[in-house]
Amino acid sequence: MNFSPTSDFARQLDQHDPLASYREQFVSNDPDLIYLDGNSLGRLPKSVVKRMKKAVEEEWGTDLIRGWNKGWWEAPTRIGEKIASLLGAAAGQVVVGDQTSINLFKLATAALRLQPEKKYIITDTFNFPSDLYILQGVVNLLGDRHEIIRIDAQDDDITPDLAALENAINENTALVTLSHVTFKSGYLYDMAHITELAHRKGALVLWDLSHSAGAVPIELDKCDVDLAIGCTYKYLNGGPGAPAFLYVNHKIQNEVTSPIWGWWGQNNPFEFDLDYQPAPGVQRFLIGTAPMLSTLAMEEALTPLLEAGMEALRAKSILMTGYASYLTDTLLAPLGFSLGSPRDSARRGSHISIRHEEGYRINRAMIEELNVIPDFRAPDNIRLGFAPLYVSFIDIWEGFDRIRRVVEEKRYEKYPKQKLLVT
Amino acid sequence: MNFSPTSDFARQLDQHDPLASYREQFVSNDPDLIYLDGNSLGRLPKSVVKRMKKAVEEEWGTDLIRGWNKGWWEAPTRIGEKIASLLGAAAGQVVVGDQTSINLFKLATAALRLQPEKKYIITDTFNFPSDLYILQGVVNLLGDRHEIIRIDAQDDDITPDLAALENAINENTALVTLSHVTFKSGYLYDMAHITELAHRKGALVLWDLSHSAGAVPIELDKCDVDLAIGCTYKYLNGGPGAPAFLYVNHKIQNEVTSPIWGWWGQNNPFEFDLDYQPAPGVQRFLIGTAPMLSTLAMEEALTPLLEAGMEALRAKSILMTGYASYLTDTLLAPLGFSLGSPRDSARRGSHISIRHEEGYRINRAMIEELNVIPDFRAPDNIRLGFAPLYVSFIDIWEGFDRIRRVVEEKRYEKYPKQKLLVT
Repeated sequence: MNFSPTSDFARQLDQHDPLASYREQFVSNDPDLIYLDGNSLGRLPKSVVKRMKKAVEEEWGTDLIRGWNKGWWEAPTRIGEKIASLLGAAAGQVVVGDQTSINLFKLATAALRLQPEKKYIITDTFNFPSDLYILQGVVNLLGDRHEIIRIDAQDDDITPDLAALENAINENTALVTLSHVTFKSGYLYDMAHITELAHRKGALVLWDLSHSAGAVPIELDKCDVDLAIGCTYKYLNGGPGAPAFLYVNHKIQNEVTSPIWGWWGQNNPFEFDLDYQPAPGVQRFLIGTAPMLSTLAMEEALTPLLEAGMEALRAKSILMTGYASYLTDTLLAPLGFSLGSPRDSARRGSHISIRHEEGYRINRAMIEELNVIPDFRAPDNIRLGFAPLYVSFIDIWEGFDRIRRVVEEKRYEKYPKQKLLVT
Repeated sequence: MNFSPTSDFARQLDQHDPLASYREQFVSNDPDLIYLDGNSLGRLPKSVVKRMKKAVEEEWGTDLIRGWNKGWWEAPTRIGEKIASLLGAAAGQVVVGDQTSINLFKLATAALRLQPEKKYIITDTFNFPSDLYILQGVVNLLGDRHEIIRIDAQDDDITPDLAALENAINENTALVTLSHVTFKSGYLYDMAHITELAHRKGALVLWDLSHSAGAVPIELDKCDVDLAIGCTYKYLNGGPGAPAFLYVNHKIQNEVTSPIWGWWGQNNPFEFDLDYQPAPGVQRFLIGTAPMLSTLAMEEALTPLLEAGMEALRAKSILMTGYASYLTDTLLAPLGFSLGSPRDSARRGSHISIRHEEGYRINRAMIEELNVIPDFRAPDNIRLGFAPLYVSFIDIWEGFDRIRRVVEEKRYEKYPKQKLLVT
């Protein structure tokens, strides 16, 4: 089977897709919509509709406070274990709760306080800006004893400067923290290699898995990663703003403490002791009462992912991003587009960026005129996310064909060059 | 109308209750259940069932990522304003997000960093233990430059030692932080008086409104309160673990900064600047993507409260706690109970504690044998919460009559003296 720029070929790919039947498990109220933004907010699994009805009407409505004894209280650890199985993490290292930024705050602060004599945090501008803000806040909070070494990429860079990264890490490095799959180009860091580099110099490593959890295989334990965080509303389909997760390696769990001494992280919280004593293990990083409706929706959404398994998901994902790269080259390059993502699938997540000087307006026209939803990241990246459970190859074909029409027919020209609130 | 210990009298009270019709707006799948734990988890408003269906199926299911442009993004400030109207706070001072403990962490840290030269935090053991943990963590995080002066109450104390509190506040006090309505006895602090006392010495004041929001009238602006936090799943009926709120007085909003530099608190977050710049106003205390299902459920739950108004809610609440105190004296005192709450309704929230040396086992028997749900707080307090929107006087009568039966028939004796996970 060779790639070809026809809809017939896309249909053939769908016919050979072992995951094709999962598409039926997701709500699709608008069959014409081409949704390529599962890297930002995953689609709604049908089973979540039912689960939410039960959570609201039976659990809150009937069980009331008794719900806490019937599965709510254990949710952060129970769901943590499910996510752990997607991250290559053995039991007892992952919990669910709070938001990604809070979890980064907790773990980055804990890491710096574990190595207070080491000055530097290494990160880069491939990292999500919100992660940089959190790190800046932590440095400020700890009295500016630490300093962030930020490796700045250029707008055109698709892959990071690994030599610069390696050079930056030294014996005075407390923490190396990066996005495993970068939000713009979709570059996939070599977790084992970077972690090993950092460990060789005595630094701790914290990975942000927001764009990789559920999209690429992850081996936290095998790579001996120290700390990780991530969100659950992208490829994990947890729903808008669903609670985040965090991972703390067994080896350091009882050496690190959370900067936020919450009662869900207290040893024996229902003793109501007046003094804080951290719970053993990763549980000490929980803070307070979890938003249960959002938490239970997210738990249910994990079911098809766990069933499909990361190996099959990754195989389809690679085929999809490869096919999309091919369509970028054949259909779109003549119209002024270029691929903004790595060509080597081993170094690529499950989204690609396509770049065009009119990217912002093209993205907007696609949403408002042609019922295709990608998203846009400055200066010129249109991101196309391919969630293996519900995106078909004919979706990809149709999406690219509509992009072609938008540009050939110059249908983007009527839009102003300003930004929507969220694109 | 004089109080009398008969069900007829309770029915009369219900007939004269101007809020009686609101009961119909709440889900009640078990008409026999006497639910007196709205101070821990409020009942489910029927309109929330419909709102959640829309949020899941239409907003997440159909709008997908576009939901952020259709009302999700503004939810923390939009809902903040609704809650503000219950707190006596003018616009622009309340936002919703995260959990109560995280909000306390943010605001307590901000307060201490605003007055770093002042050493002391004043609090007491009427405050919820989790608040004490958070404060201990903040002191630890800021390098033990501050110290907590904790005014310790005895187990039998119903009201705090106000003289001790006043004596503890001095020119070296950075922050006074207390629970407005205390979780055990339901004592209601005089917010205006304590705030004024603290201000006279130059201290900031932070109130935890978890047990008072939606239960008692609050005048944050009029009392010139600096900072406040609170949860939304008790009297605000927001659902299990619903997001919390925080209040920052206009006067100090631009002098304080959050210790957690989140992108939802960033000035122009969609510019994706690489350096954090706090948003103007209270918005800077937001962190990251809010758990939207839990957030929207909570918003909907506020509707009947806002419609009924705090004045009517408080009038019924006072009558209910007064009636319950009377039934404690007449029906239960002969069985070994005593009232663990203030007799002066002006100093009482919307729950009362009744105390009995077998309180733990009695509480358990009530739940498991007689379909009454209160909750228990060590050493001997059975808490009975009276949410004015859905608790009737006949509920209270029936609840007390069942307590009487449990004790007279010694039906608690078969239960062990150990604790359930959550009671």
